[in-house]
Formats: sequence, C-alpha cells, structure tokens
Amino acid sequence: MKINGTAYRTIWPGEDGQSVVIIDQTKLPHRFETVMLRSVEDAGRAILSMRVRGAPLIGATAAYGLALALRDDATDSGLANAIAFLARQRPTAVNLRWALEETRQAIAGLAPAARAEAAFAKANAIAEDDVETCRRIGQHGLGVIRALADKKNGEPVNILTHCNAGWLACVDWGTATSPIYQAHNAGIPVHVWVDETRPRNQGASLTAFELMSHGVPHTLIVDNAGGHYMQHGKVDLCIVGTDRVASNGDVANKIGTYLKALAAHDTGVPFYVALPYSTIDWTLTSGAAIPIEERSADEVLKIPGRLADGRVATIDIAAAGSPAANPAFDVTPARLVTGFITERGIASADRAGLLSLYPEQRETAA
Amino acid sequence: MKINGTAYRTIWPGEDGQSVVIIDQTKLPHRFETVMLRSVEDAGRAILSMRVRGAPLIGATAAYGLALALRDDATDSGLANAIAFLARQRPTAVNLRWALEETRQAIAGLAPAARAEAAFAKANAIAEDDVETCRRIGQHGLGVIRALADKKNGEPVNILTHCNAGWLACVDWGTATSPIYQAHNAGIPVHVWVDETRPRNQGASLTAFELMSHGVPHTLIVDNAGGHYMQHGKVDLCIVGTDRVASNGDVANKIGTYLKALAAHDTGVPFYVALPYSTIDWTLTSGAAIPIEERSADEVLKIPGRLADGRVATIDIAAAGSPAANPAFDVTPARLVTGFITERGIASADRAGLLSLYPEQRETAA
Repeated sequence: MKINGTAYRTIWPGEDGQSVVIIDQTKLPHRFETVMLRSVEDAGRAILSMRVRGAPLIGATAAYGLALALRDDATDSGLANAIAFLARQRPTAVNLRWALEETRQAIAGLAPAARAEAAFAKANAIAEDDVETCRRIGQHGLGVIRALADKKNGEPVNILTHCNAGWLACVDWGTATSPIYQAHNAGIPVHVWVDETRPRNQGASLTAFELMSHGVPHTLIVDNAGGHYMQHGKVDLCIVGTDRVASNGDVANKIGTYLKALAAHDTGVPFYVALPYSTIDWTLTSGAAIPIEERSADEVLKIPGRLADGRVATIDIAAAGSPAANPAFDVTPARLVTGFITERGIASADRAGLLSLYPEQRETAA
Repeated sequence: MKINGTAYRTIWPGEDGQSVVIIDQTKLPHRFETVMLRSVEDAGRAILSMRVRGAPLIGATAAYGLALALRDDATDSGLANAIAFLARQRPTAVNLRWALEETRQAIAGLAPAARAEAAFAKANAIAEDDVETCRRIGQHGLGVIRALADKKNGEPVNILTHCNAGWLACVDWGTATSPIYQAHNAGIPVHVWVDETRPRNQGASLTAFELMSHGVPHTLIVDNAGGHYMQHGKVDLCIVGTDRVASNGDVANKIGTYLKALAAHDTGVPFYVALPYSTIDWTLTSGAAIPIEERSADEVLKIPGRLADGRVATIDIAAAGSPAANPAFDVTPARLVTGFITERGIASADRAGLLSLYPEQRETAA
C-alpha cells in the first residue's frame, strides 16, 4: 500500500541482492524508517524486537533470514543452527516455524553452494503467496462492501475494525483491511472507524497510520465507542482479523473483539472475520480450547507516545503500585460472526461453512 | 473513605471557619494535594478546572462557593452575581444549578447579615445529604454482594466497574463503589476489576487510586478485557453509576457501559446500576432522547501520565493529523440492566420498578 504516494511492502529484497529491507514498525506512527537486514542475526533481532510483527510478516522475515544465514554458512550444521536461532525469537509464532520448514524443504536436496539462492527464491515465493492470498481476501470482501455501497446513495460505507489486521501485519494488503483498500482503490466511498485497541494501541499506531498514509478516510475512536456508533446506525459493517479460528467457527482475536461482535449482533450490523487458510486450526472443535496469552501488566500501566517536543517517551497512567492484568486475546463465539472472508470466498462461521471452502480438510477437521 | 489510613471526604469546611478544603483531583493519581477555597472565585475555578468533578461534588462545591461569596457581599445583587458566576462554570451540570437553587431558597427570607452563615449551613446539609444517600445505596447494594459471597465459600466476590462512580465523584462512599466499600468494611472478601475507561482514564486515575488508598483488592484492566473475564466466570457482578436514567429504565453512562452490559447479559452476570434519586429524569420516556456530549478529539489522541522522572506530561498516541471522534456517553437499554440500586432500595430497570421506589413520582413520570 502507499505511504506518501509511494507503494510499499513491509519487506522486500535489497537492491544489492545481499540484503532484505523492512519498515521499522517499532517507530510507527511517530517516525517512518526502513532498516536493512544483512545477516540472520539482523533478521532474528527484527523479529524479537517486533520491528516486524504480524504472523505472515514474521514468517516471510524468517524465510529471508534463513536465506541470509545460508549466504554465510550453507552447511547442514549452519542450516540447523539458523533454523533453531530464528525459531526461538518468537516461540509461540506458528507461522514462523511454518515458514522455516517450508524453506528447509525447498532446499533439502540441494548442494550447499545452491542453497542460499534457492532459499532466497523460496522466501520471495512465501512473500508473493501472502500478497496474493491477501489480495484475494480483499476481492471477496470487496463484494460485501460493494453490496452495502449500492444501498447508500453515494454516502460512505462505514466500516469498523479492531486492532491491526492490516498490510503492516502482512506483506501487502492485509487481511481485514484488504477489502477496504480495494474498495477505496475502486472508487467506492468508505470511512473506517479505527478502534485504538488498548493496551498496545495497534489501531492508533498502525491501522490509523496505514489508512492515513494510503489516503483512506478514517476516524480513530476509543475501544469503548464502537457500540454507541452501532446503536446510532453509524456502522454498516465490521471487519476484523483473527489469530486462530476453531473448526466450529469460534474466533480468537485481539482482546475486545468479543465486545464489538456482541454490539454488532445486538444492533444488526454484519460482523465479518477476514483470514487466510493458514489461520484455521482444524484440530480444535471449539474456541474454548484456544489458550489465551497473559501479557505484561506494564502494557496496561504504561503507554508510549510522542511528547510535545517530538521525542518518544512512555508514561505511567495509574498510581505507582497499581496491580493490572492483561489478557491479550478473547474468543468470539461463532454465533456472533456473520461470515468468514478467506482467499477462497465467503462462508458461514461454522464447520459446514469452513468445509465448503476447504473440502480437502474433511478428513482432518475435528 | 481512607487515604493512607486517614478518613477523607472530597470537600470539607476549613478549620478557620472561613474556607472550604478540597482534594485537587486534577493531580490524581500522581500526587495527592488538598486546596483551600477562600472565595467564590476559588470555588468557580475549582469547578471549571475539574479539580472537583462528579455531579454531587460539583453541587456541594457550588453551595459552599455561594456561602463564600456571601461572606464578601451578602446583598441581593451579590447573591445574584455569585449564582450566575458559579452556574456558568459547567453549563450542563444539572446538579450545580440544583444546589445553587437549594441554597438560594434556604436564605431567601433572611436579612443580608444572616445569609452567609445560613448558606454555609445549607452547604453542609447538602454535603451530609449526599453522604447519607450514598451510604444508603451502599447498604442496599451490600445485600447483593453478601448474597453472592454466601455462594463463594470465602473466595472473593469479583465485581467489575466502569469509569469512576466513586467517592471522589461524591462527598463520600460513591454510588457504584459504596456497596463495595461497605462489603469490604464488613469483612466480605471482594475484588474489583477496574475498567481503565478511555479516553479520560477515570478508572486508572481515580477508581484504582480510591480502591488502593482504602485497601480494597482490585486489578486494573483495559476496557477491552471485561467481556473475556465474564466469559471465563471471573466476574460475579457488575456495578456502574449513571449520569441520567430515563423513566423506562434506559441508562446513560460513560461511553463503553453498553458493551459491558451486553457482555454481562450474554454471560449471565448480574449488571446493576447504582444511583441517587436525583439522577432519574422522570420527563424522559426513553434513553434515545438523552443528548450525548461529543468531546474534544484531543482526549482520544493525547494521554497524560507520569514520566520516569516523576514529572507529569502528555503524549500523543497517533500520527500527527490523525482524525478522532469522542462521544462521552452511551445509552444502555433497560433490557440489559438487572436492577437499580438507589438510596430507597433495589428495583427492576423499568417504569414499574422505578415507581415502586418513588411512588410520589407517579404524577410526573412520563
């Protein structure tokens, strides 16, 4: 997507053919900086420090990191060490391990001298595959937005989203944002209500930044406000991403998603979840089995931002010693979800709906 | 309630008999400071700058402010000027005008020389009446908590609250917090989930501070988290305050209350609203008629807090130029409210319930 008129991805091969370039997302939204990764150590640090974040982008970065490692040491032990090093940077990131395994398999039969180039090619393919998956999600979601636009007589379609399931979490397009970008690019008037998404404020720092940079009309709101706007007919559609979907259609996503789904259900607003195939956990029959990460209380108690003089600083919002708790995700029951938007199309949020899009999973689905 | 073991109210007569003392709430939770009000100008500034906030406390401050004015000028014109001056500090605060009118009536027939003392006595009575009203709300709410405690075998009763309907908004006890303080004081184990309540963070800066200062176990959470805890059986009860209740039981309260009421309804958690009689608007048949204040976007975009060196500063959380919207309240439909807790007892959230507590309103109720 565009930043100040220039099309960007979140990761791309350097012009020297020896490096990979990323956007340093820890600096957003206050500064836009790119960083060159020249070694597997650089790639590992970028993942660990969350300069790159979002499952698809972490996966692509890991694949490129493995290619960079093989440039320096393409032996079997070099390969094994690099995989182990990269995998431990974010131990729970499923996509990270998946991308490493894909890349390992792609070079498995090759002589060491051929490995680096093949790994680089595989990393490029993983990145391109993510772009194409997200583009297709957007194409299917575009139909939902277009149908709503047809009833609005040129008024913008108001879309609420939570957290950042945007292109900054992927390689391009994003998942929840892909239909929005495609509608905007197609000239359909859209306006996005951006939940700030406490505690980490991904809505304020990433989604609002993305939309502003690409020129999509939007308004930042606190997480408390979306229900009120739905009650007053100011939201035509909700689209969110997801971290994991169970085979019964239950949706794990950023904390607070459940509250917005309840409000959408109560007010008759369609609530869609956009996701790639890789997010479906066919082995889980219910969202109740999805473990919910408890993160640091400091994310609740301390907020980073920009001081009046432009410097970035962190403030404490509560009295010293205040206890806080920080569950990172919640599970939205399938009954509150209008439908899934995937790269294969749109389906109802239940086992039958998911299997209608992925019939090849009929054997594995729990 | 207590701060570091000392019992405080939010406003009290100065020992010199010529002044009134308040807690400077703009400094909370980072510093605890009291301020002496010596003139009507001091009182007006305290209201305007939100050193005192919360409808009951604003009312009491205005009454004391009028008494201070009459010490300097007890003529009819002095009285009229002081009332006009105080009323315009917060033009929409119903309680402010109510307290001024009560005080004016109390001194109406008196000679100028007797007015100041009578106004001071009336201000004291208004403050005492608020304390007694809140105490009674707490007594009735205590029964709800006690009944839940009886089923928990000594485990704490987990109570979620939103915003600050605490003693800092009143003179003592608070509304939503009064049952909690009374349960705690009675030795019933309670634990409070405190919604931080963006955008102004009254939960983090006031409610958590109150509870910590009085020694009530609590945990600060982001506004997104409450639904998740309700899904997992970690919330036994919700109690919130309200800014205005329509005669059909619809509840206007701080933005986000509706989302918590939806989650409570979805998960079977009792959702109570605590209020004094003065909050009921008998002229409104529905919450849809309650105007919702749209406040400054800066409250969304900028957050005040304490830097590492202890200074208080304000940060920007979004990119410069991000648009934001800031509705201050939402309306929770009566169907989502388990009951009202008032100084007269507990009633269902509907016209019949309200009239059962206030039968004298049968003529005026819309």
